[in-house]
Amino acid sequence: MRVLGIDPGLTRMGMGVVDGDVGRPLRLVDVNVLRTSSTLAVPERLVTIEKGVEAWIEEHRPDAVAIERVFARSDVSTVMGTAQASGIAMVCAARLGIPVAMHTPSEVKAAVSGNGRADKAQVGAMVTRILRLDAMPKPADAADALALAITHIWRGGAQARIDAALAAAATRGTR
Amino acid sequence: MRVLGIDPGLTRMGMGVVDGDVGRPLRLVDVNVLRTSSTLAVPERLVTIEKGVEAWIEEHRPDAVAIERVFARSDVSTVMGTAQASGIAMVCAARLGIPVAMHTPSEVKAAVSGNGRADKAQVGAMVTRILRLDAMPKPADAADALALAITHIWRGGAQARIDAALAAAATRGTR
Repeated sequence: MRVLGIDPGLTRMGMGVVDGDVGRPLRLVDVNVLRTSSTLAVPERLVTIEKGVEAWIEEHRPDAVAIERVFARSDVSTVMGTAQASGIAMVCAARLGIPVAMHTPSEVKAAVSGNGRADKAQVGAMVTRILRLDAMPKPADAADALALAITHIWRGGAQARIDAALAAAATRGTR
Repeated sequence: MRVLGIDPGLTRMGMGVVDGDVGRPLRLVDVNVLRTSSTLAVPERLVTIEKGVEAWIEEHRPDAVAIERVFARSDVSTVMGTAQASGIAMVCAARLGIPVAMHTPSEVKAAVSGNGRADKAQVGAMVTRILRLDAMPKPADAADALALAITHIWRGGAQARIDAALAAAATRGTR
């Protein structure tokens, strides 16, 4: 399967595409950081993000999109923009019927490093090793996006299937 | 001018359209509350919101969209969904080149009632009086959306013009 991992943010949005399956070597397809200028108004920045995510989905045609789950308790100064950027990414995927999964930072850290409290450098080092890269992807947003894609593949897309099943069951229940 | 006011939310999204100008009587054009079911996954809910906002913009062709500014310090359980819904509304407008303005809840309360700490009932009563309606718009999300549109008209779209001027100046400065 091919997964687009997204580390959402208004200023820097990490996007990483990984091919692979559980128990087989993974392959880096592409990685990028989408930037928007803080001199622009937020609506314009979100439109830039929308266009960037749309272009990547069209180019790479992922089977799933894995986005970092943002918590309201994160850094207050950036959390609203991050939530908005993640919402745009969700819509870009869902509009095309591509399954969207959310993974928390500690799930991602645990999946790639075995330690839910790993720091950025450890996550970056493990992403480099797992994808057999010559150098650590930079900035950290790029490595985090790849870590999200890896996490999603290793979890076998299980969470997305569980969510879909629960949503379907709930819909049946309310008919 | 015609303004679409939006009180963003994942479960209930208030949308109110008001025609008018500073110093002249205002007129209610349309008001609605867009609802999405909590049994759906967030990406699907956001796509429903996108379609609903797009349809309203197409139907009513507002000159500006006024959205309630969401704060990270609001109720933690709903703030992320509210931020995402507001981001979708911003993109729907900005994509079409329609100016977007944000007004805080206290700015709206102060504009319609003269009291930045007015409660929901006071805001609803003032919206009813200002638009010369027979009954208070319900639920509160509908009245709040209309209050946002009224606020924007009464502020003469000044904030949007200031924001645009600052953004243009900043762009010139970084060239």
